[in-house]
Amino acid sequence: MIKPLLHIIKLLPFRRKKFYGFIRTTTGCNPSNLEIFEQAMIHKSAMLKNSKTHKYINNERLEYLGDAILGSIVAEVLYIYFPHKNEGFLTKTRSRIVNRSLLNSIALEMDLHKWVKTQSLLDVSQTSILGDALEALIGAVYLDKGYARCKQFVQEKILNQYIDLQRIAREDNNFKSLLIEWGQKNKKSVNFITEELHSYTDSETTTKFKSKALINEELLGEGEGHSKKEAQQNAAHQALDKIEAE
Amino acid sequence: MIKPLLHIIKLLPFRRKKFYGFIRTTTGCNPSNLEIFEQAMIHKSAMLKNSKTHKYINNERLEYLGDAILGSIVAEVLYIYFPHKNEGFLTKTRSRIVNRSLLNSIALEMDLHKWVKTQSLLDVSQTSILGDALEALIGAVYLDKGYARCKQFVQEKILNQYIDLQRIAREDNNFKSLLIEWGQKNKKSVNFITEELHSYTDSETTTKFKSKALINEELLGEGEGHSKKEAQQNAAHQALDKIEAE
Repeated sequence: MIKPLLHIIKLLPFRRKKFYGFIRTTTGCNPSNLEIFEQAMIHKSAMLKNSKTHKYINNERLEYLGDAILGSIVAEVLYIYFPHKNEGFLTKTRSRIVNRSLLNSIALEMDLHKWVKTQSLLDVSQTSILGDALEALIGAVYLDKGYARCKQFVQEKILNQYIDLQRIAREDNNFKSLLIEWGQKNKKSVNFITEELHSYTDSETTTKFKSKALINEELLGEGEGHSKKEAQQNAAHQALDKIEAE
Repeated sequence: MIKPLLHIIKLLPFRRKKFYGFIRTTTGCNPSNLEIFEQAMIHKSAMLKNSKTHKYINNERLEYLGDAILGSIVAEVLYIYFPHKNEGFLTKTRSRIVNRSLLNSIALEMDLHKWVKTQSLLDVSQTSILGDALEALIGAVYLDKGYARCKQFVQEKILNQYIDLQRIAREDNNFKSLLIEWGQKNKKSVNFITEELHSYTDSETTTKFKSKALINEELLGEGEGHSKKEAQQNAAHQALDKIEAE
């Protein structure tokens, strides 16, 4: 078992050998097809040409696949970990785990930034490039090793290392749901009116959101954002601040 | 192999034996734990008490799990079937397949309505009860038989039987994207303003959407709906009709 493995490693030039070691340590798997792991590290801004097919390659397709595989693995982990919780709780908890900013910070801790190829001029830790690469890595492990080994990788090397399921389940920074709970306790109606503006012109697409939080028809909070959620959260936050001040 | 199987079947009362046969034909698997398949058929409106644990059970948790597993299986099938398509195309095509109304109609063709237990007063074919039960069935196959067998079930008994991947990929009933394409071709700006009204009172939660489609700032279409997408589709449809009439 050891001998043929060493043989494979010797065939690779120095940089690839190092990358092979990184993948082995990071995923717990010995990659059979190293190329697919290399592809997982190529952000679209750095599209590289495949020397054999002369096609440009990047990690977008692997990211799409990994995102779906991660979703189903996390869904099952939560299903088993919380045997008495309902579907609403499980869905909410899952979305907190497969959340872009959490994946970005996990990818950073896993040192993916040392291997990701990008031409982006931004600081990678301020973009979703690393989280996308982590999803692509999950896609690569799935294609190379199958579902069971991929699940083991996600559980042992991601969830067990970086995520406290109990704490995530307890957390509630959701101002909107806090405001709704407050309304239910105090027998007041809570309404959100959210306006979404899409602009499509020849050269660009922009989307903006504006939200109003009304308590018994009275306007208590207003918020803006790049997503509906962000606008509503901001409006709810302002309303909660006003309620607290009163 | 045949003998112990017959033995299991004989142990079951008549109705369960019939259900066992239905699951075997429908999924291509011999269920090991029939209870989990029975649970998959229980809509929340018909919550039944488990005779051993005295807990109420329904198919919501299995539906949550099956939804995620189906998502990853379809993601992989498309990844392999369309090796040269980008992530945007794959995501869009996937959402057309794991679409609620398509799942409902497939579940109806699979005869799930003959086994689903519900107390809903509505015609089940007009609700998402059957599509939810199909997802729960996928969750049950996964738990009972693992990922590989579940993938085989989804591919052979669902995708190959009911879905023409080439046709789905070509289809475009998306009025919003048609309107945006028209705007780009004709150098006109296309804007959607969508208003979302959430009402939360002690006893109920309602959400309504109203959308306006503006071409070069001129209002050409208005639409309402239970989802943002529906409202925008209706507004875009009306705008396209007006453009065609002109």
